[in-house]
Amino acid sequence: MDLKGRVLVVCLLLSAFFLSAFAVAVTLEDPELKQCKHQCKHQRGFEEWQKQQCERKCEDYIKQKREQEEQRRRWEGGGGEGGSFYIREREEFEGRGQQQQQQGDENPYFFEDQHFETRVQTEEGRVQVLQKFNERSDLLRGIENFRVGFLVTEPHAFVSPTHLDADCTPFYILNRDENERLHIVELLKTVSTPGEYEAFHSAGGQDPESFFKAFSPEVLQAAFKTDRNKLDRLFGQQRRGSIVRASKEQVQRMSQQHGHGGSEGIWPLPFHGGESSKDSFNLFKKHPSQENKFGRLFEADFKDFKQLQEFDLLVSFANITRGAMEGPFFNSRATKISVVLDGEGHFEMACPHVAKQRQQSGRSQQRQKSSPTYQKMSGDLRRGAVFVAPAGHPVTTIASRNNNLQLLCFEVNARDNIRFPLVGKNNVVSQFDRQAKELSFNVPASEVESIFNNQKDELFFEGPNEQPQHGLMHES
Amino acid sequence: MDLKGRVLVVCLLLSAFFLSAFAVAVTLEDPELKQCKHQCKHQRGFEEWQKQQCERKCEDYIKQKREQEEQRRRWEGGGGEGGSFYIREREEFEGRGQQQQQQGDENPYFFEDQHFETRVQTEEGRVQVLQKFNERSDLLRGIENFRVGFLVTEPHAFVSPTHLDADCTPFYILNRDENERLHIVELLKTVSTPGEYEAFHSAGGQDPESFFKAFSPEVLQAAFKTDRNKLDRLFGQQRRGSIVRASKEQVQRMSQQHGHGGSEGIWPLPFHGGESSKDSFNLFKKHPSQENKFGRLFEADFKDFKQLQEFDLLVSFANITRGAMEGPFFNSRATKISVVLDGEGHFEMACPHVAKQRQQSGRSQQRQKSSPTYQKMSGDLRRGAVFVAPAGHPVTTIASRNNNLQLLCFEVNARDNIRFPLVGKNNVVSQFDRQAKELSFNVPASEVESIFNNQKDELFFEGPNEQPQHGLMHES
Amino acid sequence: MDLKGRVLVVCLLLSAFFLSAFAVAVTLEDPELKQCKHQCKHQRGFEEWQKQQCERKCEDYIKQKREQEEQRRRWEGGGGEGGSFYIREREEFEGRGQQQQQQGDENPYFFEDQHFETRVQTEEGRVQVLQKFNERSDLLRGIENFRVGFLVTEPHAFVSPTHLDADCTPFYILNRDENERLHIVELLKTVSTPGEYEAFHSAGGQDPESFFKAFSPEVLQAAFKTDRNKLDRLFGQQRRGSIVRASKEQVQRMSQQHGHGGSEGIWPLPFHGGESSKDSFNLFKKHPSQENKFGRLFEADFKDFKQLQEFDLLVSFANITRGAMEGPFFNSRATKISVVLDGEGHFEMACPHVAKQRQQSGRSQQRQKSSPTYQKMSGDLRRGAVFVAPAGHPVTTIASRNNNLQLLCFEVNARDNIRFPLVGKNNVVSQFDRQAKELSFNVPASEVESIFNNQKDELFFEGPNEQPQHGLMHES
Repeated sequence: MDLKGRVLVVCLLLSAFFLSAFAVAVTLEDPELKQCKHQCKHQRGFEEWQKQQCERKCEDYIKQKREQEEQRRRWEGGGGEGGSFYIREREEFEGRGQQQQQQGDENPYFFEDQHFETRVQTEEGRVQVLQKFNERSDLLRGIENFRVGFLVTEPHAFVSPTHLDADCTPFYILNRDENERLHIVELLKTVSTPGEYEAFHSAGGQDPESFFKAFSPEVLQAAFKTDRNKLDRLFGQQRRGSIVRASKEQVQRMSQQHGHGGSEGIWPLPFHGGESSKDSFNLFKKHPSQENKFGRLFEADFKDFKQLQEFDLLVSFANITRGAMEGPFFNSRATKISVVLDGEGHFEMACPHVAKQRQQSGRSQQRQKSSPTYQKMSGDLRRGAVFVAPAGHPVTTIASRNNNLQLLCFEVNARDNIRFPLVGKNNVVSQFDRQAKELSFNVPASEVESIFNNQKDELFFEGPNEQPQHGLMHES
Repeated sequence: MDLKGRVLVVCLLLSAFFLSAFAVAVTLEDPELKQCKHQCKHQRGFEEWQKQQCERKCEDYIKQKREQEEQRRRWEGGGGEGGSFYIREREEFEGRGQQQQQQGDENPYFFEDQHFETRVQTEEGRVQVLQKFNERSDLLRGIENFRVGFLVTEPHAFVSPTHLDADCTPFYILNRDENERLHIVELLKTVSTPGEYEAFHSAGGQDPESFFKAFSPEVLQAAFKTDRNKLDRLFGQQRRGSIVRASKEQVQRMSQQHGHGGSEGIWPLPFHGGESSKDSFNLFKKHPSQENKFGRLFEADFKDFKQLQEFDLLVSFANITRGAMEGPFFNSRATKISVVLDGEGHFEMACPHVAKQRQQSGRSQQRQKSSPTYQKMSGDLRRGAVFVAPAGHPVTTIASRNNNLQLLCFEVNARDNIRFPLVGKNNVVSQFDRQAKELSFNVPASEVESIFNNQKDELFFEGPNEQPQHGLMHES
Repeated sequence: MDLKGRVLVVCLLLSAFFLSAFAVAVTLEDPELKQCKHQCKHQRGFEEWQKQQCERKCEDYIKQKREQEEQRRRWEGGGGEGGSFYIREREEFEGRGQQQQQQGDENPYFFEDQHFETRVQTEEGRVQVLQKFNERSDLLRGIENFRVGFLVTEPHAFVSPTHLDADCTPFYILNRDENERLHIVELLKTVSTPGEYEAFHSAGGQDPESFFKAFSPEVLQAAFKTDRNKLDRLFGQQRRGSIVRASKEQVQRMSQQHGHGGSEGIWPLPFHGGESSKDSFNLFKKHPSQENKFGRLFEADFKDFKQLQEFDLLVSFANITRGAMEGPFFNSRATKISVVLDGEGHFEMACPHVAKQRQQSGRSQQRQKSSPTYQKMSGDLRRGAVFVAPAGHPVTTIASRNNNLQLLCFEVNARDNIRFPLVGKNNVVSQFDRQAKELSFNVPASEVESIFNNQKDELFFEGPNEQPQHGLMHES
């Protein structure tokens, strides 16, 4: 399985010259189709005929989906030329949102479609930004400076020159692939107002509006040494939105100029055309830091890419084999933000804070117990979902039996962080003194050991046979 | 006076391998008795017969105290086997609390019993956590990430394996001394939610509850490759609380395994058994940084122990001779958190903020004065009290005439901090130009100098003859 | 034009021994007169006779102003000896304040007289502190730790020994010039409570009150080994305020002692008398980093002065020629705080946040646009005004046609900051690919280039011929 050539290229778009956010680009040829077929091909225990049947089903499904999308688009009156936007997906989200509201509110660590704000939506692409982490609960105040965003563009779409009031360069992006969408996941660190950032368009006209239009005409005339009429024209012609379609010729010329080849069909580059060797990092060039038949983990840290040091960040990609699971483990210092790139599954996390907050609000002046109560935080994962595991919180992620679960993870506060395994090789409990085992569990040490030493794998394990019920949170 | 062999060993339990909180262990054989007798022995000006009489009184007092404690315990129905907890001390605190409420609210820098939350209380020990520093007043928001905690265990008590969502390792603790309580003072730096942390028990069952119980049974079965019945048993047997009594044999075996000898009767160690040379630091190995007959100061900074650098912390121990005083001085950058380990006394601090806040709330639109008004912040110190001196605030601490006052101090924001003496050797005013002295005090420079050069000692001074009235704060 | 010898000396008063705030001292011989005459001398296109006429008018104006000031002072009953304070200027500010309230509230980036609190005001000088940056709006929460202050003293005035609970040394200041006021601009970084700091006077009596008076008399007697009567006298005699007049002899003796010569008439020094080579930095020793006939920029960063590194700060001085302009540009990471030292003008800045906040409060559930709306934030600049440009925000500053506009700027969060020019040499847009220009503006690339390459100057440009209307903010 060649990840690089197949579905996914993750690279950090970083400039040595301009500072940059951590953007991770993911190209999906036709993402669902490709993925669907891939799953058919690698389905364990499938005969050849089963694989082919599976692939046909994929194609049928995609065809059907396309037709539905087209229909909806027409119905909503979108799809016209420049400047008319549709918000179909947004509305769909909102519908889903209401019915899941309750779950979301009880679990401040889990984010789905309805927790994203659509900032840009044109025919050619969209930008979505996850709500502030501390908006629903104070428990994530520690990462309030960070925001997660998605940028999705159609083939040959061009994203207008933009800078942000976040730790990020001016950039513009061209998806030079003819057939595949370009998906970019961004982690932004705000630098002025914690958790707030906006886009600034230098180039642009009426839509996107150029920020130059905020200045007095007299000031602009002097600054540009250019008369008003010419400026009015320059800053008035763009009305097609901040993501537009480039012509074949425009794509070709830009590609020639920059010479960024490769079959990935990705070409997001800060406009200055920095050397990619310094400016970007391909996560898959490294050997996986963990690998077995249940999953693979690729990690990049300060040593691999010095820009990560400034953000105090570790970036990783986990591919959990369908039917398998990752963890449970916990991080000593880092808070881990996981974005689902593909597949389905769910996560479970033990949290003592939410239970405590409830106790306190319905405070029954109860006598103190000798230890806290842990509540299960869980959520159904599908593409685009985000979940957060704060430092110290034991967490496990389980792939569905149908698809590999692919996660892109940002570990914030990564310096000197240690990941403590809770089961499998080198798990924390197996390292206790025998006496400590006895005293802690109140059973013979040999019994503790027989259980904690039974699982021999590391990090990735065979998953549960039955799907646990996790739609609602259980009191544990 | 050999501090190490006598009452107190302060060591930083730090792991080079696992990150760690700053925990300071203090053993008191029978703390009050030992201390009481020691004071008798070193009472200046006592004849031999007076010393012996004094020691007998100590023993009587302790005996009486013990009986009262026993009685109260029986009356409250506590003291049964495993799993029944008494909160005697907590109730006692609360009673005291009400009557002192007013003083506390007016002085946000001073913390007593009633400002602690008891998180764990079993027959064998207890864990208490000081309220968040910024809970009563915004003035301590600068140290909102830090929490102070106390852990006290009976002889041979075992503290269950725990990790925290704070900058701290997984740890368990055994008090291997047969007779003495183990006292640990912790300074925790929270890493996720500012000022919030909880304990996570991996090993455990029903009490302490293991966090494993928050996960779905199906998930646990897969993770452990173990069937549900065995897991139910493993995570169900511990019902004795998170601090339990170890048998003599268990203590012996753990001690043999780790070989941490010494007569101190302390054996708190992260479970991985790190080398103590790297992982811990004995404050008393150093020469005192200040010493005279009125007191001694031991200090450890970045150079002594590199882990302090990460916390931007200085740790010190001050032993103020009974009847003597430390300061006044102020710190240029550091905020100093002092914990009373033993003895009695009081502190006084000059603060312009509290007075200003009051002025503003009862705002009389008064004409601006040319300088702020300083209010005395003060408090009666006894074992377990905590007080905070923010940067810039002149502070002095005075031991009672009966006992030495022993303080463990954490200076947060320690990098490049300077302690400025306000009286005695090298005091700030004595270094002014003669003209500056005249202009500042509006008296001849010689008069300023005769007063500011009169005190020749440094940092520790002979204290006041009469005890100042300080129970309530005075408007200055 | 020799800046150093003329109007302005900017030096960072920093001690290698004691930590220090960033204080910038500015001496103005008779500031307005000198400036006024200077402008006459360098007025472009003036004949010699016009220059002389211009200078005469300056003198008349200053004379008249002095008389008015004197009259008002008498009328208000101020001006008596020691201890009587006048708040004339404050009142004047407040009058002005009301009428401009509305503008101020809508523009949280702009600060005028009414946003300053007068902390000290005596015959000999005054201290003013700008309100907390985040007081009017959350948008400046990123710099809530910083405060800006002004200290102005009359000739031969002495500022009492003071320390602050901010990152700053104990200091006292003597203006040893016989004729010129001393102006100091301070940028303070608070270390305890974010944004809060107070002054602490060690030396002093009743006014300024010494903080020693907050301690109990018994404690002070012990600390000083001095009886109460003597202490009462020492801390009772100073009643003249915290800024007093030094005699000629006192000035002479202090000057001799420290040997800090120079014709600048400035002598602010931490009391310890550190070596000026390490402790202070003269911004004008460096060559300007930008210079043309429209303006000059002097900058000091970490390489010039290592203390700046700790504050993560860049300090600069911009002199914009009358009728000229600086920018527009934006900073990638730094938030820039600009203080007007002299001259008049105005600034304009594009901000998407204020408009968004209004939209949200009057939320019309509007369909999302594809880009934000930028609002012009602007303000009239005169001496003492302060404005803030957060990271990412395009900003331009325009000098009036009458006077050079002189700005002292602090760039907070300066590490790895890049200033991106938006017009003139190397402007951002001119570096785009031709195809990106076309796609962004929806006009031919040649048209974009003809406009963005027309202005050949860098940073400082010829200003607008007509003064733009900027008193009120325009919706753009």
